[in-house]
Amino acid sequence: MQRVAFLGLGAIGAPMARHLAARFDLAVWNRTAVKARELAASAAARVAASPAEAARDAAVVVTCLPTSREVAGLLDGPDGLLAGLAPGALLVDCTSGDPATSRAIAERLAAREVEFVDAPVSGGVAGAEKGALTVMCGGSEGAVARARPVLEAFGERIVHCGGVGAGHAVKAVNNALLAVHVWSTAEGLATLAKYGVSAATALDVINASSGRSNSSMNLFPERVVTRAFPRTFRLALLDKDAATAADLARDTRTPAPMLQLAADLFRAANATLGDGADHVEAVKVVEAWAGVEIR
Amino acid sequence: MQRVAFLGLGAIGAPMARHLAARFDLAVWNRTAVKARELAASAAARVAASPAEAARDAAVVVTCLPTSREVAGLLDGPDGLLAGLAPGALLVDCTSGDPATSRAIAERLAAREVEFVDAPVSGGVAGAEKGALTVMCGGSEGAVARARPVLEAFGERIVHCGGVGAGHAVKAVNNALLAVHVWSTAEGLATLAKYGVSAATALDVINASSGRSNSSMNLFPERVVTRAFPRTFRLALLDKDAATAADLARDTRTPAPMLQLAADLFRAANATLGDGADHVEAVKVVEAWAGVEIR
Amino acid sequence: MQRVAFLGLGAIGAPMARHLAARFDLAVWNRTAVKARELAASAAARVAASPAEAARDAAVVVTCLPTSREVAGLLDGPDGLLAGLAPGALLVDCTSGDPATSRAIAERLAAREVEFVDAPVSGGVAGAEKGALTVMCGGSEGAVARARPVLEAFGERIVHCGGVGAGHAVKAVNNALLAVHVWSTAEGLATLAKYGVSAATALDVINASSGRSNSSMNLFPERVVTRAFPRTFRLALLDKDAATAADLARDTRTPAPMLQLAADLFRAANATLGDGADHVEAVKVVEAWAGVEIR
Amino acid sequence: MQRVAFLGLGAIGAPMARHLAARFDLAVWNRTAVKARELAASAAARVAASPAEAARDAAVVVTCLPTSREVAGLLDGPDGLLAGLAPGALLVDCTSGDPATSRAIAERLAAREVEFVDAPVSGGVAGAEKGALTVMCGGSEGAVARARPVLEAFGERIVHCGGVGAGHAVKAVNNALLAVHVWSTAEGLATLAKYGVSAATALDVINASSGRSNSSMNLFPERVVTRAFPRTFRLALLDKDAATAADLARDTRTPAPMLQLAADLFRAANATLGDGADHVEAVKVVEAWAGVEIR
Repeated sequence: MQRVAFLGLGAIGAPMARHLAARFDLAVWNRTAVKARELAASAAARVAASPAEAARDAAVVVTCLPTSREVAGLLDGPDGLLAGLAPGALLVDCTSGDPATSRAIAERLAAREVEFVDAPVSGGVAGAEKGALTVMCGGSEGAVARARPVLEAFGERIVHCGGVGAGHAVKAVNNALLAVHVWSTAEGLATLAKYGVSAATALDVINASSGRSNSSMNLFPERVVTRAFPRTFRLALLDKDAATAADLARDTRTPAPMLQLAADLFRAANATLGDGADHVEAVKVVEAWAGVEIR
Repeated sequence: MQRVAFLGLGAIGAPMARHLAARFDLAVWNRTAVKARELAASAAARVAASPAEAARDAAVVVTCLPTSREVAGLLDGPDGLLAGLAPGALLVDCTSGDPATSRAIAERLAAREVEFVDAPVSGGVAGAEKGALTVMCGGSEGAVARARPVLEAFGERIVHCGGVGAGHAVKAVNNALLAVHVWSTAEGLATLAKYGVSAATALDVINASSGRSNSSMNLFPERVVTRAFPRTFRLALLDKDAATAADLARDTRTPAPMLQLAADLFRAANATLGDGADHVEAVKVVEAWAGVEIR
Repeated sequence: MQRVAFLGLGAIGAPMARHLAARFDLAVWNRTAVKARELAASAAARVAASPAEAARDAAVVVTCLPTSREVAGLLDGPDGLLAGLAPGALLVDCTSGDPATSRAIAERLAAREVEFVDAPVSGGVAGAEKGALTVMCGGSEGAVARARPVLEAFGERIVHCGGVGAGHAVKAVNNALLAVHVWSTAEGLATLAKYGVSAATALDVINASSGRSNSSMNLFPERVVTRAFPRTFRLALLDKDAATAADLARDTRTPAPMLQLAADLFRAANATLGDGADHVEAVKVVEAWAGVEIR
Repeated sequence: MQRVAFLGLGAIGAPMARHLAARFDLAVWNRTAVKARELAASAAARVAASPAEAARDAAVVVTCLPTSREVAGLLDGPDGLLAGLAPGALLVDCTSGDPATSRAIAERLAAREVEFVDAPVSGGVAGAEKGALTVMCGGSEGAVARARPVLEAFGERIVHCGGVGAGHAVKAVNNALLAVHVWSTAEGLATLAKYGVSAATALDVINASSGRSNSSMNLFPERVVTRAFPRTFRLALLDKDAATAADLARDTRTPAPMLQLAADLFRAANATLGDGADHVEAVKVVEAWAGVEIR
């Protein structure tokens, strides 16, 4: 059975690792070790004492961390990934990272004959638990082909987007569009609320019309109108993703005033609401500015 | 059989009138008279020589024109609606109009004991032909109740949004969100195209993820990636609707930087592409700025 | 000696009225009557009991109020201006108002053979005290010529900008540019502060370079870097002026994304800081978003 | 007499080099060699055959190129700067560059005991000819002290802004504010033009009021209202500087929606007008969008 390592047992990572444990000889590592022990206790996985140990003998190492910076931070030192990865191994990074850092990581790995695939996922905790994630891959044809059996453990739709970084790029743009939709829908519903139209009524119409989006069809009815605002995906992470997309637009010389504005509004919302807030709570900043509640 | 009049036989208005002709004793009027004669030749409708004549004896008059200004322009003069509308009649305006003008029209009608309902529709030409439009209504409970049997001739979902103007307000916000989605999706796909990711691949991922919208799921695959850009809804009209929503935000003191930006970008696109362009052709402005094609 | 009335003895209005008292037979009125009594006690002016009384027998009535709405609110009723203004009189409105309301006021006055000039001022309290204000006028050639001797009592530079509303339009655009400059300079200096460059150093360079403005040369050195933030001109009023300019851009179909954005950012700043804040305190919102102080 | 080298004899660089030739033993190099020969013919300077030759024996090397990329491009190869620079030498980069590239260059130089100062200038061709430029420096205290005698040959005001990159950062922010002022003033004047107020009249008022800036006081009266639009500073370069400032804001996590918007509008203007356009010609894009001329 192929040996696989998984690093980063967060809300999305843990169920992904569980699916891998059912198919592969799995070693897990997490910065907070107790999470690794919990996972190993409930699934067929070994706990590794360090990234180096996790990588040792693994044909494929999967990382799933908050940002590319954390991934880069695992590379060096005696306990780092580079100390464990053998020539011919493959690093699959499921972090919602940034293309530039991933390209730099890929270059360093290439010097040791280790291939790299960026493979961020979408579908949330529910998708991870069902093994029904969408995975967007960046890397060479060969590397993505090698990653595919691993990714199929938790991914339902695996799309090869382009070279190294392309997976992160598509994920960042998708999430920037999410940010645009959440904010602009909030602006529209706040305006209507001040005009005397309830959000429920407005959504009833919009969701049968051309202005509908995933945000208006799911997030607003379930989370905003109900005032539930569950914490499923941190605002700080969407802030980061929107900034990654905005930077990519600037770097490719693509005028993208809407993506730039969304990135800055979410940055301001993060500064206003603090790091614990969920991404949909950005709506509360629009409400505070307008002096109205969307319900 | 109740007498109904219909004024404004454009791309959406004509099929709406056809549905009314099947249920009511219908008089039709159109500025370009030949369109009225064509409709009367193929459906059970009379041609009226003027708005006044159309309104005479009609219990309900339905208007469907490019903007509220054209509706207001039909009121006065010996041939105008006010010369024909009897006390107790009802004017139902299906124009994608603006709330302020509609409130002014409603006030003038009220002085003659004529009620007013704004009832813009969504669903496009296809929805009008199938009689499956969504209708968003603004007006008193009583007036909307009186309008409902008429609206049901072509509307599948009839939503009472609030007082006079509320229908226009919801329609304007819906369309402003459409404008936001078209433009921001174009920005994202242009960025990815410059990064080497094809639009088809990116849409494959986005449409299975949180960044999807009606625009990404329908307009881009069918109209942009194919380079078909059919002319179904004029950019100039979406420009107008986005401006109406942006004005409503300003008037209600709702900071709405995204809606304001969308309104100005579509205004600029209209100035750039000319009045004949379809709303989805705004994508071409993003492409020209970025120096790339989305395909 | 010509009889003049002055209504609205605020921070700017009071010194303007004092200059008028030195040249004309002046009646003053203020909503809070004690201010009118104070002015009359220290200058050669009579206190009028109502707008109507102030206007009675006056050849020229000058108003200086927070917004055009307050001016319109003084017209009607037995104590209102219309009850006092004689045919042939002239109303000069020094309010920083909005063109649309002024045009409506001018129409009502014209029906009574009273002319109207909008004549907002710039130069602040200091300029008002020195009688060195800039006055931007809108109205007919004849009306502005009649207003000029009155305006010269407190104005150093009197510019005829166009028809009724043109003075308000120019004032609104000027103030919108002020809003743009305050906000964008804050963004730039906050960025540099986070990069380790002090605001004093940055301003030293910018104020000798192409990026300088009245804001960078005066407001930031005197009010921001010193943390003095004196309250000389309310944020709520600049918010209103920026919105007036943004509305004018929309109404004239001028894409003006920067003016629109400035209007919305100041609206948000007003919602955040409350009505008592000075216009330069908008900088504090930029600082809070960035997590840095500009000093 | 100290030996100095100057590389990059463009519109600003040539007069700077002329001032240096009067004080130092100067070697000059330019990619298009004829410009170097012309300068040497009219000033006391030697022509160097390559960057390496120019740097050989020079205590201070001054570069003045379009972007940091060109500076980095001169470093390597047998003819490159690194082949000529001796330990203990100093590289002073007067390019309007970007902080990140400069930091990378400084690191490479430090490994060879060569110090680096970024020293972009403002004041334009006229300032360069008069030797009255403002110079904003980034680098260590010692390095800036060593650069000062060289910079004083053409600089009137020499400001030490911070560590390596700080000079570029301040220059980028200054130019981003210039971009903001040019665009927003154009928006305001276009709006007023459509309202019937001439630009000359509006500027007369604004330049005596709080909305004035270097742009409104100098650029618009001299270049826009006259329709002269002289080509003194390329739009493509201001586009680059505004993007550098916007990137710096994003990198320092400073929400700066106005700077971001200005960067994108200038990017779009550059795509629209082409690379030959002057920075003030961005006004023509605003005019085209509004359908009016500012005069």
